[in-house]
Amino acid sequence: MSKDYQAISDEHDARAANLFRAAPDIMRSHRKITQAAQSPNALDVKTTEMMALAIAITQRCEGCVIYHAKQAAAHGAVREEVCDTIAVAIEMGGGPATVYGADALGAFDAFSS
Amino acid sequence: MSKDYQAISDEHDARAANLFRAAPDIMRSHRKITQAAQSPNALDVKTTEMMALAIAITQRCEGCVIYHAKQAAAHGAVREEVCDTIAVAIEMGGGPATVYGADALGAFDAFSS
Amino acid sequence: MSKDYQAISDEHDARAANLFRAAPDIMRSHRKITQAAQSPNALDVKTTEMMALAIAITQRCEGCVIYHAKQAAAHGAVREEVCDTIAVAIEMGGGPATVYGADALGAFDAFSS
Amino acid sequence: MSKDYQAISDEHDARAANLFRAAPDIMRSHRKITQAAQSPNALDVKTTEMMALAIAITQRCEGCVIYHAKQAAAHGAVREEVCDTIAVAIEMGGGPATVYGADALGAFDAFSS
Amino acid sequence: MSKDYQAISDEHDARAANLFRAAPDIMRSHRKITQAAQSPNALDVKTTEMMALAIAITQRCEGCVIYHAKQAAAHGAVREEVCDTIAVAIEMGGGPATVYGADALGAFDAFSS
Amino acid sequence: MSKDYQAISDEHDARAANLFRAAPDIMRSHRKITQAAQSPNALDVKTTEMMALAIAITQRCEGCVIYHAKQAAAHGAVREEVCDTIAVAIEMGGGPATVYGADALGAFDAFSS
Repeated sequence: MSKDYQAISDEHDARAANLFRAAPDIMRSHRKITQAAQSPNALDVKTTEMMALAIAITQRCEGCVIYHAKQAAAHGAVREEVCDTIAVAIEMGGGPATVYGADALGAFDAFSS
Repeated sequence: MSKDYQAISDEHDARAANLFRAAPDIMRSHRKITQAAQSPNALDVKTTEMMALAIAITQRCEGCVIYHAKQAAAHGAVREEVCDTIAVAIEMGGGPATVYGADALGAFDAFSS
Repeated sequence: MSKDYQAISDEHDARAANLFRAAPDIMRSHRKITQAAQSPNALDVKTTEMMALAIAITQRCEGCVIYHAKQAAAHGAVREEVCDTIAVAIEMGGGPATVYGADALGAFDAFSS
Repeated sequence: MSKDYQAISDEHDARAANLFRAAPDIMRSHRKITQAAQSPNALDVKTTEMMALAIAITQRCEGCVIYHAKQAAAHGAVREEVCDTIAVAIEMGGGPATVYGADALGAFDAFSS
Repeated sequence: MSKDYQAISDEHDARAANLFRAAPDIMRSHRKITQAAQSPNALDVKTTEMMALAIAITQRCEGCVIYHAKQAAAHGAVREEVCDTIAVAIEMGGGPATVYGADALGAFDAFSS
Repeated sequence: MSKDYQAISDEHDARAANLFRAAPDIMRSHRKITQAAQSPNALDVKTTEMMALAIAITQRCEGCVIYHAKQAAAHGAVREEVCDTIAVAIEMGGGPATVYGADALGAFDAFSS
């Protein structure tokens, strides 16, 4: 009954791979943007991934929420930090951010366990 | 084949409860916002719930659409009023509001029958 | 120092008139949508105009906020009702809705005095 | 495991038909907007349908993405043109547009084969 | 009384240059995305710039609307094509797209004369 | 010619004060949300303010961008950290985030000097 976050993530990856094969130029350029934003600089990657998660929640993009929750877990974010991230998203995003924030926590729980 | 709105609503509730346990401060604060907005004042609750539904449709937030359709039904909104609400959402939200507006009516029908 | 809402409204009207002359088909169709949404039906026009205002606040569209605040005033909305409308927008729209909600009240005050 | 775009499209059509029966005025007005926008004029329909698809991707509206991918296919858009359309959406929509852009390509592939 | 689109455009350029100096990596990556999206491929640049304009209108981003209206004019778009572009934006974006669409036409008129 | 961020900030404060007097319940509730989100917890306030700034950029809300740039400066964020914040916003928000990101840096420069 609860979401299978791993399966949803795999489906998104398969579709993204299909797009990558069909439109390599734009996808490679987007990857460079991601690398520029998600590299240790003045802020570490854990922090910038949580920022991306906060934005994804307010953008109401399920695929993005799951992806960045997974990345935040992979870069060592702990549950309390993710909750603080969701709190900022709710401050800025109102009601919908409680819906997608709850999804973010569910995804984080699935990928960090 | 058609959506099981009750099941989707239950899943959202379960995820929201999980977030509430993990981040009680922010969720309690959000509940206070909801209470301030959804209390009889110059406007009655049926009207403010339909307003929240209209916003949810234009925000393209399925979980919010289902929640506020349910609340509108619980506070006595009738089908013609919900249709007028959807009409305003379409005026302001264009094409996507026809998609999420159709979802709002489906959810209202499920919860008001 | 405070905004001249009448002047901003006039500028928007002038630009809209320019678009109407250049693209009469689409603008006439949009006017029909507006008439369908903003006609007394199960809900009266005051209510549907306040709904449109609530949506405009969460859409962060200054021109729309000013237009629908003016319309709400013209259809007899009182200040307390507009405040309740803004409250729902803040519930659904978070922080940005406090910014555009404050603008909505400023515009309503300008057009209702 | 991959999405059944035809089934999702059929579900949306069924819900839209339900809304059409309940709120014929607003839905008929919206249809007129669509006809005004999607008629051969200075731009042909294939181009305006791809524009609508590009917008749908940045609006993160799955139902709209599927609908306009189907329409683009029906009006003769080829895969390379859809990829260019997705590229503009990614330029303007960032990360979420890669998610919904991948969905657009999946839907186009389903409806054009 | 009407907007000085050239002056607004110059201000945006000055701020963008300031950001470019401070954050060259991300801005250079974004420029590559823009080049990938706005190069003649299956679609010509005039068409992809009008697509970007259509998206900008529905995103309610004044700076983007002005920039892409200028680019569309520079790549040979004529007024009737820009009107068709605005029509698609109104189909997908509703009321706010009439506001930002009127701005798009004003900017196009300023840059194409 | 460049923006007077202090004056814009003062205007927003004046309008917010007007709304606070008219609708104290909802504004007090929103203040509690802000306090819950912007308190030292697992993340410090500098980080959560930069998160709010990143979200504000992708929401294309000028008033929010200026407010949270000011708050980030007040809580000790340095220019390099704000640039990294803007980079994440561009990753997630695409073209419009370069416009509002440039505004964020301009505001930060004004409030941190």
